[in-house]
Amino acid sequence: MSDRSGDASMMSKRQVLLALSDDEIDDFLAEPVRREMLALCPNHRRVDTAGLTPEQYADELTAYRPEIVVSAWSTPALLESRLPEILEFLRYDCHLTGTIRRFIPKAYLEAGLLVSNWGSSISDSVAECALLLILSALRRATAWALGMHLEGMWKPGNYFENYSLFGRRVGIHGFGAIARELVHLLRPFAVPISTYSPSVPDEILTEYGVDRAVHLRDLFDWSQVLVELAPLKPENRHIVDRDLLQRLEPGSVFVNVGRGACVDQQALIEMAVAGHVQIGLDVYEEEPLPVDSPLRGLRNVTLLPHIGGPTRDRRIESGKLALANLKRYAGGKTLVAQVSRDSYDRIT
Amino acid sequence: MSDRSGDASMMSKRQVLLALSDDEIDDFLAEPVRREMLALCPNHRRVDTAGLTPEQYADELTAYRPEIVVSAWSTPALLESRLPEILEFLRYDCHLTGTIRRFIPKAYLEAGLLVSNWGSSISDSVAECALLLILSALRRATAWALGMHLEGMWKPGNYFENYSLFGRRVGIHGFGAIARELVHLLRPFAVPISTYSPSVPDEILTEYGVDRAVHLRDLFDWSQVLVELAPLKPENRHIVDRDLLQRLEPGSVFVNVGRGACVDQQALIEMAVAGHVQIGLDVYEEEPLPVDSPLRGLRNVTLLPHIGGPTRDRRIESGKLALANLKRYAGGKTLVAQVSRDSYDRIT
Repeated sequence: MSDRSGDASMMSKRQVLLALSDDEIDDFLAEPVRREMLALCPNHRRVDTAGLTPEQYADELTAYRPEIVVSAWSTPALLESRLPEILEFLRYDCHLTGTIRRFIPKAYLEAGLLVSNWGSSISDSVAECALLLILSALRRATAWALGMHLEGMWKPGNYFENYSLFGRRVGIHGFGAIARELVHLLRPFAVPISTYSPSVPDEILTEYGVDRAVHLRDLFDWSQVLVELAPLKPENRHIVDRDLLQRLEPGSVFVNVGRGACVDQQALIEMAVAGHVQIGLDVYEEEPLPVDSPLRGLRNVTLLPHIGGPTRDRRIESGKLALANLKRYAGGKTLVAQVSRDSYDRIT
Repeated sequence: MSDRSGDASMMSKRQVLLALSDDEIDDFLAEPVRREMLALCPNHRRVDTAGLTPEQYADELTAYRPEIVVSAWSTPALLESRLPEILEFLRYDCHLTGTIRRFIPKAYLEAGLLVSNWGSSISDSVAECALLLILSALRRATAWALGMHLEGMWKPGNYFENYSLFGRRVGIHGFGAIARELVHLLRPFAVPISTYSPSVPDEILTEYGVDRAVHLRDLFDWSQVLVELAPLKPENRHIVDRDLLQRLEPGSVFVNVGRGACVDQQALIEMAVAGHVQIGLDVYEEEPLPVDSPLRGLRNVTLLPHIGGPTRDRRIESGKLALANLKRYAGGKTLVAQVSRDSYDRIT
């Protein structure tokens, strides 16, 4: 209690600009987050971002001179040309989504602006999307959807390719926050899980009951369900290449809810067309997925349009993180999900 | 060990006929079940059911005179006209699937034939199908599948109807084995769960952490996700009527993986056409689903062709149950999943 009123008194002197659209206020700052945030920041003002240009946004900033901005998808980019003026007063851009590069030139970070994003507050939503794609691929849900809706289809008796997740060997490439949440969702299915993630220490894998694959090719050889969740560092571009994809045995499942560019898109298309592997995709090397992509129309491929990130009802989790970060900032503590100059390049 | 060799010696005198197709041997009696069953029943014989007529099957039976038959989908029906002959020797029909009425006339049960089926050995598979339909409905997977595969669709920005399962209120109509397995699969999503199932005692609901709805209408009023799993007793035919369906609020989800005839199909179609509720169906009042069903083509409806029951890789669970039942039979113990004259009528 005392800590909280302490934060509030620390915040009362600071000017906070909420540069958000109505939709963003509704979703990210749904109640009770909105009430708590406004109470924490009595000295706040909101600018509606609808139709706002970067120049107008810079003008709003220099007129109000906030120490903190709360921003999201609709917020115009900070103009590099206005940096000297803006950094006279702005110390912290509390961003509610994942993307930063589109909104904040790197020069602002290099000049000392604090930036945070939604961090791992959205991991459960993406992990849930991975589970949907896994189950969909195993049961051939897309083939049934197209056949039943368009061709009057019914099942051809009792013998056809259809699998359950129970007991299946699941490999996860990458073991960050989404992968860890996925392990929780997989728990009731009693699946053996292995991961390739050199940077994650043994203690973490032991804690989650997950085995380590020493080589990425071992993971692809072993997995009946392979979930792609590697971060898009430069060395991970196309790390999942033709050789790795060919290691997946017929009847297995390949799901990507991480980064499209980690996978050689041409090799993925060839595997999809060959038809031996069931595929579930939420992300693509080129987004939006081109209208003429050969992936469209293939019944062994479940397609989603990059919707893994938080559904509207889950965006409040990012709002909660922002609220906690504003309190940390006021108390002089280190931010959670702070975007460093290093991580800036990795966040797409 | 002694118990097992005891069962085996009890079984060595008994003649067992495996009346199964090659596919059924492969799936239901996959290793290690097959090896164990054949070791338990040294005095066995197999008849391949491919192309076998009921008359030929009766002839096979009267020629070999087994005390026990292991049967499945491909096994011809027992002829009522041959009952006096057949029941001279046959004591137990160990059936590997759910359906009994199509295979065994009720007169056989009334004359004392023991019959068992797959019981709840397949519940996890159906519960998994329910989870797939729930997640699919919440994320509008069928609308994306049809739009992305056929119309070059991509998402229309960041604001569209899409929900997560986390924290959503889940109602389950019926609380048998499948519902209980579904509760396990829902656990990581931290959803409040309520059920309407008058025959299930409070202790069971407490054990599963599930609340009781006193009236079925209360369950439909409360639920954001409603899963239909009521048994098809005569009084449950069309128990889910227009009034109940209209209680589901816009944006909610209705899933049926139980029995199609528990739902008034016409009222369901009206709700589907109205489009305010997301629907996931694996079962229908009329199966196969008619080619001209108005459900086909609706993007808010995910359709599966009654595939909830065990995928091929899970049929071994029914084989394990059969093996355990053969041991129980040999030891003079009560069978698991025994079909009584009462339950005979309920199993569709």
